[in-house]
Amino acid sequence: MQRRRSNLRNKIYIIVFRSDTRAGRFFDIVLLWLIILSILLVFMESVEGFRRLYQPQIRLLEWVFTFTFTIEYILRIYSTRNTRRYVFSFYGMVDLLALLPGYFALLLQGGQYFIVLRAIRLLRVFRILKLTRYLYEGNILGKAVKASLYKITVFLSAVITLVTIVGTLMYVIEGEQHGFNSIPESIYWAIVTVTTVGYGDVSPATPLGRLVASMLMIIGYGIIAVPTGIVSVEMARATNDAQEPCPQCKAPVEKGKANYCSNCGSKL
Amino acid sequence: MQRRRSNLRNKIYIIVFRSDTRAGRFFDIVLLWLIILSILLVFMESVEGFRRLYQPQIRLLEWVFTFTFTIEYILRIYSTRNTRRYVFSFYGMVDLLALLPGYFALLLQGGQYFIVLRAIRLLRVFRILKLTRYLYEGNILGKAVKASLYKITVFLSAVITLVTIVGTLMYVIEGEQHGFNSIPESIYWAIVTVTTVGYGDVSPATPLGRLVASMLMIIGYGIIAVPTGIVSVEMARATNDAQEPCPQCKAPVEKGKANYCSNCGSKL
Amino acid sequence: MQRRRSNLRNKIYIIVFRSDTRAGRFFDIVLLWLIILSILLVFMESVEGFRRLYQPQIRLLEWVFTFTFTIEYILRIYSTRNTRRYVFSFYGMVDLLALLPGYFALLLQGGQYFIVLRAIRLLRVFRILKLTRYLYEGNILGKAVKASLYKITVFLSAVITLVTIVGTLMYVIEGEQHGFNSIPESIYWAIVTVTTVGYGDVSPATPLGRLVASMLMIIGYGIIAVPTGIVSVEMARATNDAQEPCPQCKAPVEKGKANYCSNCGSKL
Amino acid sequence: MQRRRSNLRNKIYIIVFRSDTRAGRFFDIVLLWLIILSILLVFMESVEGFRRLYQPQIRLLEWVFTFTFTIEYILRIYSTRNTRRYVFSFYGMVDLLALLPGYFALLLQGGQYFIVLRAIRLLRVFRILKLTRYLYEGNILGKAVKASLYKITVFLSAVITLVTIVGTLMYVIEGEQHGFNSIPESIYWAIVTVTTVGYGDVSPATPLGRLVASMLMIIGYGIIAVPTGIVSVEMARATNDAQEPCPQCKAPVEKGKANYCSNCGSKL
Repeated sequence: MQRRRSNLRNKIYIIVFRSDTRAGRFFDIVLLWLIILSILLVFMESVEGFRRLYQPQIRLLEWVFTFTFTIEYILRIYSTRNTRRYVFSFYGMVDLLALLPGYFALLLQGGQYFIVLRAIRLLRVFRILKLTRYLYEGNILGKAVKASLYKITVFLSAVITLVTIVGTLMYVIEGEQHGFNSIPESIYWAIVTVTTVGYGDVSPATPLGRLVASMLMIIGYGIIAVPTGIVSVEMARATNDAQEPCPQCKAPVEKGKANYCSNCGSKL
Repeated sequence: MQRRRSNLRNKIYIIVFRSDTRAGRFFDIVLLWLIILSILLVFMESVEGFRRLYQPQIRLLEWVFTFTFTIEYILRIYSTRNTRRYVFSFYGMVDLLALLPGYFALLLQGGQYFIVLRAIRLLRVFRILKLTRYLYEGNILGKAVKASLYKITVFLSAVITLVTIVGTLMYVIEGEQHGFNSIPESIYWAIVTVTTVGYGDVSPATPLGRLVASMLMIIGYGIIAVPTGIVSVEMARATNDAQEPCPQCKAPVEKGKANYCSNCGSKL
Repeated sequence: MQRRRSNLRNKIYIIVFRSDTRAGRFFDIVLLWLIILSILLVFMESVEGFRRLYQPQIRLLEWVFTFTFTIEYILRIYSTRNTRRYVFSFYGMVDLLALLPGYFALLLQGGQYFIVLRAIRLLRVFRILKLTRYLYEGNILGKAVKASLYKITVFLSAVITLVTIVGTLMYVIEGEQHGFNSIPESIYWAIVTVTTVGYGDVSPATPLGRLVASMLMIIGYGIIAVPTGIVSVEMARATNDAQEPCPQCKAPVEKGKANYCSNCGSKL
Repeated sequence: MQRRRSNLRNKIYIIVFRSDTRAGRFFDIVLLWLIILSILLVFMESVEGFRRLYQPQIRLLEWVFTFTFTIEYILRIYSTRNTRRYVFSFYGMVDLLALLPGYFALLLQGGQYFIVLRAIRLLRVFRILKLTRYLYEGNILGKAVKASLYKITVFLSAVITLVTIVGTLMYVIEGEQHGFNSIPESIYWAIVTVTTVGYGDVSPATPLGRLVASMLMIIGYGIIAVPTGIVSVEMARATNDAQEPCPQCKAPVEKGKANYCSNCGSKL
C-alpha cells in the first residue's frame, strides 16, 4: 500500500512538475491555456456590457478556475519530495499568490483584479516549454540593462531634478487658472512633456509658459538620446563579449579573436 | 499559323514580363501610374465632398481601371510559358488580389477599400525599374531586423506583461468615472502611454493614478532605448560583417575590397 | 577720378563682402542683428494685440528695414568685381530673395510672411563669423545623413506603405462617425500615431479600432529604432573615417592607422 | 579660553563640513532629510486642499526650517577656517541661496517657490555620502555630452530654423480660425510636433495643413535619430578611449589592463 501510494506520488510528480513526458507536456499546455483563459475572464468581467449580461456565468467560471488551480496546488504539495522547499520557493510562492485572488474575488468586491498576477505564472510555462533560446536572449538584455544601471540612475536623478524645477516654475508662471493646480500636478505635466507623451490634459496657455515648455521639449528631445546611447553601448559590449577564460591564467580572453592571452602572454 | 501565334505570344511576354526593351519599360511605367491613379481614386472616393459631386465619374473610372487590369492579367496568363507556375507564384497571386477588389467595389458596398492592396503591386515595379540598390539596402535592414527578432520578441513580451499589469492597476485606481471603463481599455491607455503616443482621449485624473502614470512614462522613456540599442548593434554587425582577418597578421581587412593587408602589407 | 572711384569701390568691397577688417566685421554684426530684428518684427506683427496697437510703427519699421537691405544690395552689386557672377551665385540669389518680401509686404496682403526666408541669410553671417568649426561638425552630420540616404529612403517607403494600409483599414473600421472622415484623414491619423506624436484630435473609439491602433503603436515603437540604428552606424563610420588618399594609387587609406595601402600594397 | 574656543570651532567644523566621523555622517543625513522635508512642504502648500486646512501649521513648519537652516549657515561661517573662501565658493553660494527663499516666503507672496532651489543642496549630500561611483558615471555621461556639444549645437540650429519656417508656413495655411493665432504660437506648435510631444491643444484642421504637419512629423521622426546617433558614438568613444595600439603589431590593446598583446603576444 505504502509502495503503491509512493508510486502514484511519483507519477503525479512527473506529470505536474516535469515536462519531458507526453503527459507532463500535455498538463503544462492545458495549464497555460487555463491561466490565459482565467485572465481573459477577468478582462471580460471588467467590461460593463459583459458584466451585466453574463454575471452569473462569469462567477461560475471563476469558481471553476479557482477550484482547478486549488487542486493543482494540492497535487503539487502532495507530490513534491520536499514540501517546505517547494512552498517557500519562488515558483511555490507565485503558485499560491495566483490562487488566493480567486478566493478574494469571491469574498471581496474588486478582489478579482489581483488575478492578473497570475500572468507571472506564465513565466514557468515559458521555462517549461523549452523556450530557453528566448530566455538566453532575455539574459543578454538583462545583463546590458544591469551593466548600465549606475549610468541610468544618474540619468534618472538628473531628469527628476529637471522636472521638479521646471514643474515648480510652470506652477508659478501658469498658475491655477490654466490647469497647473499644484506643484505635484505641474511636475506630472513636466514628466508628460519631457518623456514626449504629451496627453494635452494640462497644457500651457501663456506665452511665457509656452516658451518654457518649448525649451523643456527640446531638452527632452535631446536627452532621450542619453539612455539610448547608454544601452546601445552596453548591448554592443554584452554581445561582443564572447569571452572565455585563458587556459593558463584564467583571465578572460576574446574567443576566436585573440592569439595570445593578454594577461600572461601564453599562446592560445 | 501556330508559329505566328507563338511569335505574338513571345512579343507580349517580352513587353509584359520584362523591362529590358523600350516597349517593356514603357509598359511598366504606364502600369506604375495606373496603379497609383487607381489608389488615389479610392482615396478621393472616401472624401465626402468628392463622392457627392463626382460619384458617376468615379464609378466609371473604376470600371476602366478594373477592365484594364483584367486585360493585363489575361495577357500575362496568355503569354507566360508556365501558366500554373505564374498563377501560384507570389507576384501572380498579388496580381489576382489586385484585380478582385475592383469587382468587389462594383458589387459590394465598401469593397473598393481592398483596392489599397494594389499598393503591393508597386513592389514589382520597384524591382523592375532597376532599383536594385534600394532593394539591397532593404536587404541589410531586413537582415538586421531578422537577427534581432529573438531579442525583440523577448522585449515585446516584457512590454505586453508590463502594460497588462499597469492597465489593470489603473482600472482599479481610476475606475470608470475617469474614462478607464474596462481593463482592455486601460491596457489600451497603457500602450498609448508607454509608446509615448499620448492621445489624451483617456488620461489619469486622480493623484495616485498620475503617480503611476508618471512612473510608467519614465519606464517607457527608458525602455524605448532597448529596441534602438538592439537594432543599432545588429546593424553595425551587418555592416561590419564584410571584414575578415588578414591571413598573415590577423588584422581585420575588408572582405573582397582590399588587395593588400593595411597592417602588414602582405598580398591577400 | 576713375582711380578714386575704383578705390572707393574697393573699400566698400572690403567692408561689405569680407570680414577680416574691423569695419567689415562691424558691418557683418550690424547686418546679423538687422536680419534678426526684421524677422522678430514679422513675428510681432502676427500677434493680434501688437498689430492692433502698433500697426503704423510696424509698417514704418518694415519700410526702414526694406530700404536698408535695398541699399546693402545696391552696394554689393556696385562693389563686386563680377556683377553677373554675384547676382547668380547662391548668396546673391538669397540676398535678392531676402529683399523682395519687403516689397511684397508693402503691396500684398500677407506678403510679409516671406520675410522669414531672410533666415537663410543668417547662413552667410554664420560663415563669416568664423564659425567654421560648427560648419565642419555640420559637414560630418551631413555626410552621415547622406551616407544613410538610401537606407532611409527604403525605410520611409516601408513606413508610407504601412500608414496607407493601416489608414485605409481604420477608415473602414472606425468610419466617419468617429472622426475618420476619409482615407487621407485616416492616413494623417496613422502618421500622427506611428511617429508617436499623438495629438488626440482624431482617436479610435471602437474596441477593434483601438486594437489595431495598439498594434500600430507598438510597431511604431519598434521601428523608431531603425533610423536611429542607421544614423548611429553611419555617424560612427563618418567619425572614424579619418581617411587620406594613398600617395601611390590615390585609394583612401585610414590616416595614422594603416601601415600599407590596402589597394596597391605600397608602404605609407 | 582662546584655546577652548578654537577647540569647539574645530569640533563643529568636523561635524558640519566633514562626514568621516559618526557625528558628521549623522549631521549630513539629518540635513538631507530636512532639505527633502522642506521641499515636500512647499509641494503640499501648493495643493489647495492642504493649504486651506493646514495653512497655520505649514507656516509654522516653514519658520522652523528657515530657522534651522539659518543656524546651520551661521555654524558653517563660524567654524570655517577661511570665511571669505567659503561664502564665495559654489557650495557657500548654494547654501545662502537655499536659505533666502525661506525669508522671502515669509515676506513675499509666492516667495516660497524659490525653496525648490534647495534641491541643489542635495548635490552636496550626494557627494558626501560617498556616492562617488555615481558621480564617476555622471562624469562619463558629462564627458560624452560635452564632446558632442558642437554637433548638438549645429543640430539644434537646424531644428530651430526648421520650426521657424514650418511655423510661419502653418500660420499662413491654417490661420487664426484654427488656433494658429500668431507666428510664435505656430512655432510653439511646430516644436510640440517635431519633438513628438503632440499635446493636441493646437492641431491642423485643413487638408493642406495636415499634409505639411505629416511631413514635419516624418522629418521629426527621422531627425530624432541624429542626437541619439551623436551621443551613442561619443559614449562608445568615451568608453573605448581606454585602448592604445600595440607597439609591436599595432593591434588595439586595453590601456593599463593588458600585460601582453592579445594579437602578437609581445610584452607591453
